[in-house]
Formats: sequence, C-alpha cells, structure tokens
Amino acid sequence: MQLTLYTDYAIRTLIYLGTHPDRRITVGEISTSFGISRNHLTKVVQRLGQLGYVNTVRGKHGGLELARHAGEVTLGEMVRLLEPFTLVECFDTDRDTCPITPACKVKGALEKARQRFLSALDEYTVADMVEEPRGLITLLAIGPR
Amino acid sequence: MQLTLYTDYAIRTLIYLGTHPDRRITVGEISTSFGISRNHLTKVVQRLGQLGYVNTVRGKHGGLELARHAGEVTLGEMVRLLEPFTLVECFDTDRDTCPITPACKVKGALEKARQRFLSALDEYTVADMVEEPRGLITLLAIGPR
Repeated sequence: MQLTLYTDYAIRTLIYLGTHPDRRITVGEISTSFGISRNHLTKVVQRLGQLGYVNTVRGKHGGLELARHAGEVTLGEMVRLLEPFTLVECFDTDRDTCPITPACKVKGALEKARQRFLSALDEYTVADMVEEPRGLITLLAIGPR
Repeated sequence: MQLTLYTDYAIRTLIYLGTHPDRRITVGEISTSFGISRNHLTKVVQRLGQLGYVNTVRGKHGGLELARHAGEVTLGEMVRLLEPFTLVECFDTDRDTCPITPACKVKGALEKARQRFLSALDEYTVADMVEEPRGLITLLAIGPR
C-alpha cells in the first residue's frame, strides 16, 4: 500500500511553498531541491492550481505561491482529492471481475479503514508540516541525498 | 493507494476456506472460482501456510483447510503481515532520496493514518466475512464475471 508519486509530490510542493512564504517559487526550484522529475511535478502543480491550492503569478517576480492559508489545508483533504483509492478491484466497479462482490463484506471493512486513514490525516494541516521551517529550508537548500 | 494482489488473494483464500469448512480445497478450485492466476495463488498459499493460516493436507482427500478458527483471524493481523506499507519513499530507509526526511513531519502523520487503517481492520475477522456463506458459495460456484 503506497501513495502515488502524484500525491507525494503535491504534498512536497505545498511544504516547499509553506516554508518559503516570503517569495514566489518556480517549478524548477522545487524539482531541483527535491531531486524529482520536473515534468511530473509540472502536471502536479497544474492540478494544484485547478484545485485552488496554488496560484501561478506571471512576470518578472512570478512563480508559485500558496493560494490558501497553510493552516486551512489539511493533509486529509489533499489526499482525498488527489489519491485514487482502489484498495482492491471491487472499488473500481467498471473493472471488477471478482465473482463474490455482491455478497462480500471485505469492501465494507476496507472502506471503513480508508475513512479512518483519511480522518487521521484530517488532523494535520500544511501549517503543522512547516511549523519549524528552518530545518526544512536548510535541507532543501542542500538538495537530494 | 491499493493493496497488493498478494494481500487481496490471501484474503480471498481464507474466505473461500471459511465458506467451505466441510471439506479440503485445492488451489486449482480457488483459482478457477475467482478467475485468478493459479501461479500467483500458489505463492500466496505457501506464505499462508508458513504464517500458520492454512494447513495443506496430502493424499486422496487432501487439500487446504484453515489452520486457525476463522473467528480468531482478523483482517488487520493478515494485512499487517502480508502488505508492504511503503506509503511514501521515506518509509523505505534504504531507498529514500528525499532531502527533508530528517525534519519532515509528514511521515509521522502518515504513520498515524496507517495505524488507524489497520486498527479498523482489527475489528473484522474472517468469520465476520463468511457469516452468511450461502450467497458467497453460490457466487463462487458461478465463477468469475
């Protein structure tokens, strides 16, 4: 069980912006700092823009900035919007081939587990993630390991 | 976020055995009923044997049977043992390249979410999954959709 890189990179992007509230940030700076694919990150950032998490400002001092206060954005909300939760095949009605789906109780159990997972993440905001920014800023300046 | 087929097939195997407590079952019967790979299922069953969930009885009336009472085996216990939980790369210390890991709070949040996910599954046993066996048995006899 793992989150997609898409969700992972979205969280990293908001953390990066949250640790640098004083200026606008380019996609290139974030991809270089984390050592992650710029192409992939570009798509993630476009989606974050569509979802109202980031603003892209054009021009000389342009770049990305948080569109909402970091204290308002929970990890649970982000993961709900970005992460596909096809825990087992019956979560995807169109592709389900499992014969027992109509009588199976596993889906209900997994659905409850999924909700508990997300509820836990609702307890954390992006602001919580960046409340001690100095260590993060230093590590981001050093770059990927 | 999805469970591996490995975990999925393990759960299906215990459900199959739990709905047929009156006789021993072959891997071929389970793979045919669910329409899933016999090779893959064989590996899963071997692991379920090693973990003490199933017994393999040799001979004319041989086959698989539950090694423990279905009411004693929780989904949480099974998923803990079978599912890799590398939610993001820093969960795998050997492969982690993320620069901010030493100062990052996301891992702690995800770790709490993981625990809540598993705690929810601790509330369900294999016996709960097969408490109404008739519908399951009928659907299994019909086979994959």
